[in-house]
Amino acid sequence: MSQATPTAEAPGSIRVGTTQLQDFIARVLHAVGMPEDDARIVGAIMAEADARGADAHGVFRLPPYVKRIRAGGMNMRPDIRVVQERAGSAVIDGDNGIGHLIMKKAADLAVHKARSTGVAWVGARMSNHAGPAGIYARMPLQHGMIGIYMAVGSANHMPPWGGTDMLLSTNPIAIAVPGRARPPIVLDMATTNAAYGKVKAKAQRGEMMPEGWMVGRDGKPLLDPKRSNEGFLLPIGGAKGYGLAMMFGLLAGTLNGAAFGRDVVDFNQDYTTTTNTGHTVIAVDVEAFMPLRHFEEQVDDIWAQMKSSERLPGWDEIRLPGEQSNRTYDERMAGGVPIHAELRAALDALAESVGVVPLAA
Amino acid sequence: MSQATPTAEAPGSIRVGTTQLQDFIARVLHAVGMPEDDARIVGAIMAEADARGADAHGVFRLPPYVKRIRAGGMNMRPDIRVVQERAGSAVIDGDNGIGHLIMKKAADLAVHKARSTGVAWVGARMSNHAGPAGIYARMPLQHGMIGIYMAVGSANHMPPWGGTDMLLSTNPIAIAVPGRARPPIVLDMATTNAAYGKVKAKAQRGEMMPEGWMVGRDGKPLLDPKRSNEGFLLPIGGAKGYGLAMMFGLLAGTLNGAAFGRDVVDFNQDYTTTTNTGHTVIAVDVEAFMPLRHFEEQVDDIWAQMKSSERLPGWDEIRLPGEQSNRTYDERMAGGVPIHAELRAALDALAESVGVVPLAA
Repeated sequence: MSQATPTAEAPGSIRVGTTQLQDFIARVLHAVGMPEDDARIVGAIMAEADARGADAHGVFRLPPYVKRIRAGGMNMRPDIRVVQERAGSAVIDGDNGIGHLIMKKAADLAVHKARSTGVAWVGARMSNHAGPAGIYARMPLQHGMIGIYMAVGSANHMPPWGGTDMLLSTNPIAIAVPGRARPPIVLDMATTNAAYGKVKAKAQRGEMMPEGWMVGRDGKPLLDPKRSNEGFLLPIGGAKGYGLAMMFGLLAGTLNGAAFGRDVVDFNQDYTTTTNTGHTVIAVDVEAFMPLRHFEEQVDDIWAQMKSSERLPGWDEIRLPGEQSNRTYDERMAGGVPIHAELRAALDALAESVGVVPLAA
Repeated sequence: MSQATPTAEAPGSIRVGTTQLQDFIARVLHAVGMPEDDARIVGAIMAEADARGADAHGVFRLPPYVKRIRAGGMNMRPDIRVVQERAGSAVIDGDNGIGHLIMKKAADLAVHKARSTGVAWVGARMSNHAGPAGIYARMPLQHGMIGIYMAVGSANHMPPWGGTDMLLSTNPIAIAVPGRARPPIVLDMATTNAAYGKVKAKAQRGEMMPEGWMVGRDGKPLLDPKRSNEGFLLPIGGAKGYGLAMMFGLLAGTLNGAAFGRDVVDFNQDYTTTTNTGHTVIAVDVEAFMPLRHFEEQVDDIWAQMKSSERLPGWDEIRLPGEQSNRTYDERMAGGVPIHAELRAALDALAESVGVVPLAA
């Protein structure tokens, strides 16, 4: 959401359509044991993540998912079931299935319940990484509802404020609100200044990190991303971001009977231990508050107010939360999802190793 | 939540018990037309704000509240009623009453509904300033529930990210989670690095602000709090805090039919225009997710994990969200609420002007 910069197309990068991407993901997952229908659902969600510009949460994650599946760390035929339920709430046990399937069920159930109760809150335990937060917050939108999603991140990279023990993750939140003539306003954010994936990207490019992303165990700024394992991520607003990460962890983890604090398994280091990932999705039926059309028009008006604000020197545009992701989506649905050379090589190797047709045959 | 510093008792400061404080607030409000029972409820909430250390949201606000009441800007006999309702949701029209009364009703209704639906979300419009966010998030705690509160702040001090038009307030959130042997964990935060009250306090003390609190219209750091009207507050985490302020504004303002964006009335400048303040309280019944005792024990365990973390150099303690407020509460319930000399003089003048016995007669 900083100033606009053109996306540079890396050399060796190809573009693939989202259907092609979904088909590829589905056949890889099916080849390693996921039922075909489930594999298609997961493929669609992962391809949407790529289309929306969440490059670190789409097909990029397929090799580590397959690594976990092959190591026996994820259940390919989970019995995903509601274990606690009231009219406006539920807890789902994901039986160690892939997070996408579980959280799609959670969002569908929240929408169904909110239709009668006005608001519904569905949590999940025994789940796994589910991709970008925004995907699930967006699901209620097509039903005229507001969506909210919170999760316990899949690895701890942050200590409590003033401490050095890695007890907290980047615990993200996403909130999606429908517009009428304008696109929805969708916030999707980690509670740290930088997500860990951005640190890894800096390391790959051989660049230094700006001050504020990480500190070392001495409390001093850590700028070299290759030394990221010697330090930890900083929360937004200091103690405030620490507080948000804490509360989202209690709501999406502890309340669901899922891992939080020292029980969180680092999914990048340990491919066999059950992660017991926790997430929560909330659906709010706008019609329980006011006519949907009226609300959406008001949201459009807020959009217009923000866009037409006078700007700081050097800024060419005010953006709304999710606006960049909406633009990327339109552009990629028309022109395809870029797959850079290194990722393509990794996916080709994956295809060969599981015995399926590669992405761009 | 920074490192511990002893609270210095200002010269001329007195201490009063919370009952004494509540009685004083109630007799002032009753003297200017509020029914006695309502005045006692508001007095209790405002005195609790002071006891919990929210000094800018307790009796300190009584003179401006009375100023608004006398100017005809607040309704002393509001018909506070539910105007939209489903099993797990409601919208309350506060009829321009004082926010404390309206949001106590909202919290009570949310708790009542959540007892059957698991989760309930109650919004309010046509309300006014209600004091600290944490007070309302804490209300469900005594019922074995988690509380969440969001509000549109009562004056715009922040532009959209990259802009200079004041369209956003410090839109706060509070989240309260019960513990068992430990106190509850309670986050209560503005979405800006500093609340506006802190800027005014710096100005009173003749101190400069640290970098990061405010910037001027040129985008450069503004350090002199006496020039605060030439600049604006900065959101936590840059675009992320802007996004949070935006979403809380849409949820607590727009969705309730309350003011957000350019419709927000600056309650420090304008004492007659109806503010149409919006707030929302959510109650989550823990027993809809797991046995309360088990949950509270898990929360205690998270508390213990954080507290026992190794510390950064120079830090003598890790704090949990709300811990300082809990300590202040215990200390003030035992030793009284400090009322500094300037505040006492203002309250004495107020008492004389409305014709009631002063605070410390």
